[in-house]
Amino acid sequence: MSVKLTILGCHSATPRVNAHPSAQVLDIKNNHFLIDCGEGTQVQLRKYKVKFSKIQHIFISHLHGDHVFGLPGLISTFRLLNRQTELHIYGPKGIKEMITLQLKLSQSWTNYPLIFHELSSTSSEIIFENEKVSVQTIPLNHRIYTNGFLFKEKVGKRKLNIEAIKKYPEIEICDYENLRIGRDFKLNNGEIVKNKMLTFKPTKPKSYAYCSDTKFHPEIIPLIENVDCLYHEATFLNDKQHLAETTKHTTAAEAAEIAKQANVNQLIIGHYSSRYKSKDGFENEAKAIFKNTHLALEGKTFEF
Amino acid sequence: MSVKLTILGCHSATPRVNAHPSAQVLDIKNNHFLIDCGEGTQVQLRKYKVKFSKIQHIFISHLHGDHVFGLPGLISTFRLLNRQTELHIYGPKGIKEMITLQLKLSQSWTNYPLIFHELSSTSSEIIFENEKVSVQTIPLNHRIYTNGFLFKEKVGKRKLNIEAIKKYPEIEICDYENLRIGRDFKLNNGEIVKNKMLTFKPTKPKSYAYCSDTKFHPEIIPLIENVDCLYHEATFLNDKQHLAETTKHTTAAEAAEIAKQANVNQLIIGHYSSRYKSKDGFENEAKAIFKNTHLALEGKTFEF
Repeated sequence: MSVKLTILGCHSATPRVNAHPSAQVLDIKNNHFLIDCGEGTQVQLRKYKVKFSKIQHIFISHLHGDHVFGLPGLISTFRLLNRQTELHIYGPKGIKEMITLQLKLSQSWTNYPLIFHELSSTSSEIIFENEKVSVQTIPLNHRIYTNGFLFKEKVGKRKLNIEAIKKYPEIEICDYENLRIGRDFKLNNGEIVKNKMLTFKPTKPKSYAYCSDTKFHPEIIPLIENVDCLYHEATFLNDKQHLAETTKHTTAAEAAEIAKQANVNQLIIGHYSSRYKSKDGFENEAKAIFKNTHLALEGKTFEF
Repeated sequence: MSVKLTILGCHSATPRVNAHPSAQVLDIKNNHFLIDCGEGTQVQLRKYKVKFSKIQHIFISHLHGDHVFGLPGLISTFRLLNRQTELHIYGPKGIKEMITLQLKLSQSWTNYPLIFHELSSTSSEIIFENEKVSVQTIPLNHRIYTNGFLFKEKVGKRKLNIEAIKKYPEIEICDYENLRIGRDFKLNNGEIVKNKMLTFKPTKPKSYAYCSDTKFHPEIIPLIENVDCLYHEATFLNDKQHLAETTKHTTAAEAAEIAKQANVNQLIIGHYSSRYKSKDGFENEAKAIFKNTHLALEGKTFEF
């Protein structure tokens, strides 16, 4: 089962027609995670046919408007759609006050449970975990407190080697689960059949790292090493290196350098500054350093 | 000089592709007033080529999301565009706390003066006035504290009757301003020429009333009587009269009834519920009661 990433918005700062601020949906092991929620995200969700009701967890990197100003509207819309299920919001300390003040002022309390998980640690921490997936923070270095997020599938169960199993008629269907979880099989004659003779290794778990917004920050490399896919902001090109430094953003070349040093499988760049009319420069600059680079584009889906 | 109204959004509740929540721009005597600011308003301003910098006054009817969730983003964008001039926000008490909390959390204080005028009166009051225009509230009846707004041109100066003036060579250009402001002219022989012999009446001042959201509320009629143009919400059709009552909204027929009783010149209806696929029903229902009814449509401009 592949991981599916849909880009809803990948532009920095002010929203424009056809240039929406940060938001993306990650489908991983049947979890539908919304990552960041700039103004207009709910319309982008509709445009790209993402089912609202599937979203149960929203991860907000930081409280700059282009990453969060779509959240109050989305929360309100869930209410109007008669949502019943829990909605979990993970984001910097303060996000609860921001949202609840708006709900109070509009007298529009949600009729579904709205649960905030406020973050303030500057070390990486696991913030979500279920049987199949874990999510941990990637502390970033931006003008305000910011986290990236690392989504990791857990190692699954082993796969049955049906050909091998057939050689032992004693093994019945009710024994399969024990094999999947790695147990050896004891035959009636007392002989032990090693699990690895009856099963294959589980599929390699997938991982995805979202890093936006941040300056060039190699301290994240140990956390994101070898991930299958890295989304890294690339607000500027090399020609605006000084601007990247003062605004604590990254250039395309720097994003590619991070991908290279972290030995990731593929890199997606986004969070483009509106000063660049074409995205070719981003692609060229990054690919010169890290070949397997792809441009984030609104509505584009990546599978890995 | 006509008054120009541009509809940026005219749909209720949740924004959708091509169905934006309430926002409109009124150009009146060189004032560019933004009225309500639902999510996505700044993109609509760009789409319909309204110059951001001209907007100095924003009037917010109430704090439901579909009328205000675009405001934090617009205020931030003004900052990113290096706005220097004052921005005045008129809206219900609480709006200042809502916006300033977001600015604080994002550490994005404006570099231009942001001035809040919080409203809490349940009687009509003048909230803005300059030489040419006044704006007063129209207390409405909705689920939360809500005001409509009445925009009125002031009576201008009298127009010179050049033909008549030419008969008196004694009247010089430097006397014209006195004539415009209504003064009689005293000839050298002591004779008084009455002002009305030398000037025409000033143009009839125009007026515009914005009433959204509200239940059918005839109490507003004395305030909006004889206005040139009334925008009145019409969320439902007659078939959902019961819903209009419980949600404190208006049907198209009721909006037309208000227009008729207030003897306005023209009625614009909007704030349509998304349950109706076509807007024909709104037009037909309202026109049966008040003929000069027009549908609000996104991007449409009305001049009067």
